[in-house]
Amino acid sequence: MFFEGSEKKAEIGIEPTTGSLRALPYSFWKQIVSLAKADILSQISNDQCDAYLLSESSLFVWDHKVVILTCGLSTLIDCVYGLVDAIGVNNIEWLTYQRKNEYVAHLQASTFVEDITSLRQRLSGTACRVGHLDNHHHFIFTSGIANLIDPQDKTCEVLMYHISGVVADYLRTEQQSIAQIYSLLQLDELFAGFTYDAHLFTPLGFSINGIKDDLYYTIHITPQEKSSYVSIETNVDLNNYPVDITAKLLAILQPRSWDIIGFNIQVASPNMPENICLGHCSYPVKQGYNIHFSHHQQCCTEVLTPEFL
Amino acid sequence: MFFEGSEKKAEIGIEPTTGSLRALPYSFWKQIVSLAKADILSQISNDQCDAYLLSESSLFVWDHKVVILTCGLSTLIDCVYGLVDAIGVNNIEWLTYQRKNEYVAHLQASTFVEDITSLRQRLSGTACRVGHLDNHHHFIFTSGIANLIDPQDKTCEVLMYHISGVVADYLRTEQQSIAQIYSLLQLDELFAGFTYDAHLFTPLGFSINGIKDDLYYTIHITPQEKSSYVSIETNVDLNNYPVDITAKLLAILQPRSWDIIGFNIQVASPNMPENICLGHCSYPVKQGYNIHFSHHQQCCTEVLTPEFL
Repeated sequence: MFFEGSEKKAEIGIEPTTGSLRALPYSFWKQIVSLAKADILSQISNDQCDAYLLSESSLFVWDHKVVILTCGLSTLIDCVYGLVDAIGVNNIEWLTYQRKNEYVAHLQASTFVEDITSLRQRLSGTACRVGHLDNHHHFIFTSGIANLIDPQDKTCEVLMYHISGVVADYLRTEQQSIAQIYSLLQLDELFAGFTYDAHLFTPLGFSINGIKDDLYYTIHITPQEKSSYVSIETNVDLNNYPVDITAKLLAILQPRSWDIIGFNIQVASPNMPENICLGHCSYPVKQGYNIHFSHHQQCCTEVLTPEFL
Repeated sequence: MFFEGSEKKAEIGIEPTTGSLRALPYSFWKQIVSLAKADILSQISNDQCDAYLLSESSLFVWDHKVVILTCGLSTLIDCVYGLVDAIGVNNIEWLTYQRKNEYVAHLQASTFVEDITSLRQRLSGTACRVGHLDNHHHFIFTSGIANLIDPQDKTCEVLMYHISGVVADYLRTEQQSIAQIYSLLQLDELFAGFTYDAHLFTPLGFSINGIKDDLYYTIHITPQEKSSYVSIETNVDLNNYPVDITAKLLAILQPRSWDIIGFNIQVASPNMPENICLGHCSYPVKQGYNIHFSHHQQCCTEVLTPEFL
């Protein structure tokens, strides 16, 4: 029942003079995601963005920006090479490539260091690990010319581990519906006015993409009891929004621990569930923004179950 | 400067009718430890035990029991196969094989699951993981006939991560001496009356073996700032001893987090440094003892330094 929910993520901004990425045909994106060993399941669009739901997470395409996340044993780095080569290195303004804390890192086809060693043959950049190796940690590679990013361009990732409670229990049942999950997560309230596209996986798992103008959110749930993981990623400014999305989703999903990563935004972690921030760091990136990381753990003692092998 | 301090550990008990393991020549042990890619550096003995200091940790040999720990990229499982074959499967009463939480598990030559898959071709047994995969966790394999272990036979492991303070600082200096480390760790008081044998490694690292009658302790220190690790292992009954060894060493080395594993003994973790037990579990083993695991983290927020790669 083990599934590696943690995603690899790439974000690429291109020179506006290159033309629109949205003009590229479906067959192009289908081939690009196949390099990561993923398929396109469905698509929604508005006048600014195309959002693809993948067999392993999500792809968002704007005129001059693409965001792709893939989980499991997918090989996102191969997809990044494909994109960089297709777009042309000289047409890329900036690129970030990230790997999250995997439950079983050694099952992956490559390590982050191996990934960026190849990537650096195409693009120079800065690579960093935030978080101790024996605890939650994330790897981030950033590339691009200096002071390029619009200060209003903010991205936030809330990554939850070991979810619990009634919603987590529901997500582990055999009879689920997209409508019921959407309702339990209160997404109608949290992301009001967003168009969405969701998928239930077999035997377990839930993915949703939402878009509204140039805004997006994407939530991926791996509910499997021993290695549950939920990621929420969005360019909504979580610090200036009518609802406290982070607090609401933490209260609903009750993770044992969670990480918050903000690009150009430092999202405060709520007090509930009662938690301790075990570590945090912030550092500036040449492209003109700051990266903020914090790792939180519930303040309670868990009686662990030995896992027989 | 990275060094993987976490040890693999094997403990084997043999049928008394087989004869004494101490009668085996030095050349035998030298060859056995070479299978794990380790060398013997020095040796001390008393009337009950031979204690060998290794290039990667330690080996203790009693008449009918052997304990071996090896750290770094050593391949202890190959040494276990060698021992099992040399002693003869039918002469082995019980065996435990353990792997601790590694900082960079994917650098290891094999995984625990691969290790025990081969081991099970020689010996049946129970394998278990204690602790979540995304936090400190340990793997333990136990083999042997039922209800064999003397209730007085207790082993305790205190494993520290990210040490800090003046002693940690001293352990990272270029000018160190064994005498000064021995004094800073207060080992004269903590293990009074033990004969000891210690080694300073280049560029950094400290190992010590101590023996007194049939009792042993062994301490291995990997002080490297980004991945520091200290292990204390002993068959001294830490709950019935004139000094609170665990409390003293935690106060001296001030780890950010630590794990305690007890075989037949549940060692209470002290309150200082102020800490939260994030998880614990206990389970019985067929051979007639209980295994206790607990994972502790200091109750404070660390400002992390991004690690550039």
